Amino acid sequence: MEYHNKVPKPTIQRLPAYLQLLKRYQNDGTEYISCNIVAEELNLNPVLVRKDLASVSSVGGRPKIGYRLDTLILDVEHYLGYRDIFPAILVGMGHLGSALFAYPGFPDYGVEIVAAFDADTDKTGVMPSGKRVMPMSSLSSYCIDNGIKLGIITVPADSAQVVCDALIEAGIRAIWNFAPTHLKAPAHILVQNEDMAIPLAMLSKHLQAME
Amino acid sequence: MEYHNKVPKPTIQRLPAYLQLLKRYQNDGTEYISCNIVAEELNLNPVLVRKDLASVSSVGGRPKIGYRLDTLILDVEHYLGYRDIFPAILVGMGHLGSALFAYPGFPDYGVEIVAAFDADTDKTGVMPSGKRVMPMSSLSSYCIDNGIKLGIITVPADSAQVVCDALIEAGIRAIWNFAPTHLKAPAHILVQNEDMAIPLAMLSKHLQAME
Repeated sequence: MEYHNKVPKPTIQRLPAYLQLLKRYQNDGTEYISCNIVAEELNLNPVLVRKDLASVSSVGGRPKIGYRLDTLILDVEHYLGYRDIFPAILVGMGHLGSALFAYPGFPDYGVEIVAAFDADTDKTGVMPSGKRVMPMSSLSSYCIDNGIKLGIITVPADSAQVVCDALIEAGIRAIWNFAPTHLKAPAHILVQNEDMAIPLAMLSKHLQAME
Repeated sequence: MEYHNKVPKPTIQRLPAYLQLLKRYQNDGTEYISCNIVAEELNLNPVLVRKDLASVSSVGGRPKIGYRLDTLILDVEHYLGYRDIFPAILVGMGHLGSALFAYPGFPDYGVEIVAAFDADTDKTGVMPSGKRVMPMSSLSSYCIDNGIKLGIITVPADSAQVVCDALIEAGIRAIWNFAPTHLKAPAHILVQNEDMAIPLAMLSKHLQAME
């Protein structure tokens, strides 16, 4: 299977929504889907949808009929990496970290959190899932020994940069950052920020405007 | 205090990052900050930062010196609605819903989750925080009686639209949706989607590209 080398970032960001929709249609017993239907369901421009799907489909759509759903779903899943599972580690077992570590659904998205770390040794040990929470002193050796390339940061803002530096030192190449702070990292490291303050600001502004 | 009527959405989305930075400088004992420093710290275009801050500042910056930090922080917080607390309700007490309901930090961002609802009556009752989880049959009357305008959806994808419709029926005007599905809502309702699949797709693609 061969893909275009460079699929634009906004396309990647739309693919999960396409995938949800395609699976819903498949569950309803549909065999083919057209770009126009996808566009209409998701309130997107049909030209955009056509380009997006063409860039990840291995076989292409058929005029008038559209894409075979089962093939297209496999193509999108393959493209998004859902067919591989990247092991990840998580640092910071507070409220959010514990919830993410306990969440069983990540493998559906191609990621599995295999271990967690915390500076507080009261929090280390084996979880009900059988997965371990280890002290920070084990972080580097664990990541290197297990070839971990993905790290999740759920520590408070003031310790996030130190953790980020330690992860990079341990060979991590992509960071999912939930700490509300801007992290400095070399250009080849992807830092994906998940700042809850941004959606909350959008919601508050909408409600303020209505008052 | 008077603001420009229409601050663009990307500006609103950048304001939380500005605020974090401004508070960090204030904690370090700094009194004034220039747009150039903000731009440099956050890897942004200085012209953009200048426009953003001008659009929310009540007093303006001083040439060469910049903005007074304490005033600017108040202005940004006021603008983002952090000085008001919007009460919110949450529907769906699974892993994620429980974590959000237990998280004590939302009031810092102008939102407080005052009650939760779940279809499973085994989950209803009073939480350690003293807040209540109620059955779905109480949703509408609770929202109307308490003037709730903000709803958080943490139910599975296949029940999200039903919950969304119920929230709108109960007077909700803004929805923070964590269910991995596209919700249909009238144009005056803001639906803010928090789809974990999108950042996970970005991270997986980055790691795939490195293999």
